[in-house]
Amino acid sequence: MPEFMDVHHNMKGVTAEQLKAAHEADLEIQGEEGVVFKNAWADPESGQVYCLSEAPSAEAVQRIHERTGHPADEVHAVPLVV
Amino acid sequence: MPEFMDVHHNMKGVTAEQLKAAHEADLEIQGEEGVVFKNAWADPESGQVYCLSEAPSAEAVQRIHERTGHPADEVHAVPLVV
Repeated sequence: MPEFMDVHHNMKGVTAEQLKAAHEADLEIQGEEGVVFKNAWADPESGQVYCLSEAPSAEAVQRIHERTGHPADEVHAVPLVV
Repeated sequence: MPEFMDVHHNMKGVTAEQLKAAHEADLEIQGEEGVVFKNAWADPESGQVYCLSEAPSAEAVQRIHERTGHPADEVHAVPLVV
């Protein structure tokens, strides 16, 4: 399944608890779109959050993030990985 | 050791071979700055490349990328990971 990196730009001050809660909300419903969220990395200082997933499409990733209340600002297919 | 996500914005059309060569060039000298590059994910269509590393500082990450000819456009500490 293709991999995607999505990016959130405005999560300044995000805490470990908030990141975990957001990730768990995604995990709960991800199966409805065939998405598998793998990891998320957050920089509370700049507000950037990066989420790595496997999914059928960028739109499927975004639909899950929208339904859980944190739409991504960018969703990129990342077909090349090292 | 802290983790960092660095981002390159202008690698449109990057190939698997080019990504691998760039990553290997970083790996060859990363020890001189105490950096450990882990993965890199690339979207040849938009030109975005994301590199995950462990490093003593953002500046150390950038120094390696600069010496190997592909300075990052952003380097973010990502202290929160799920």
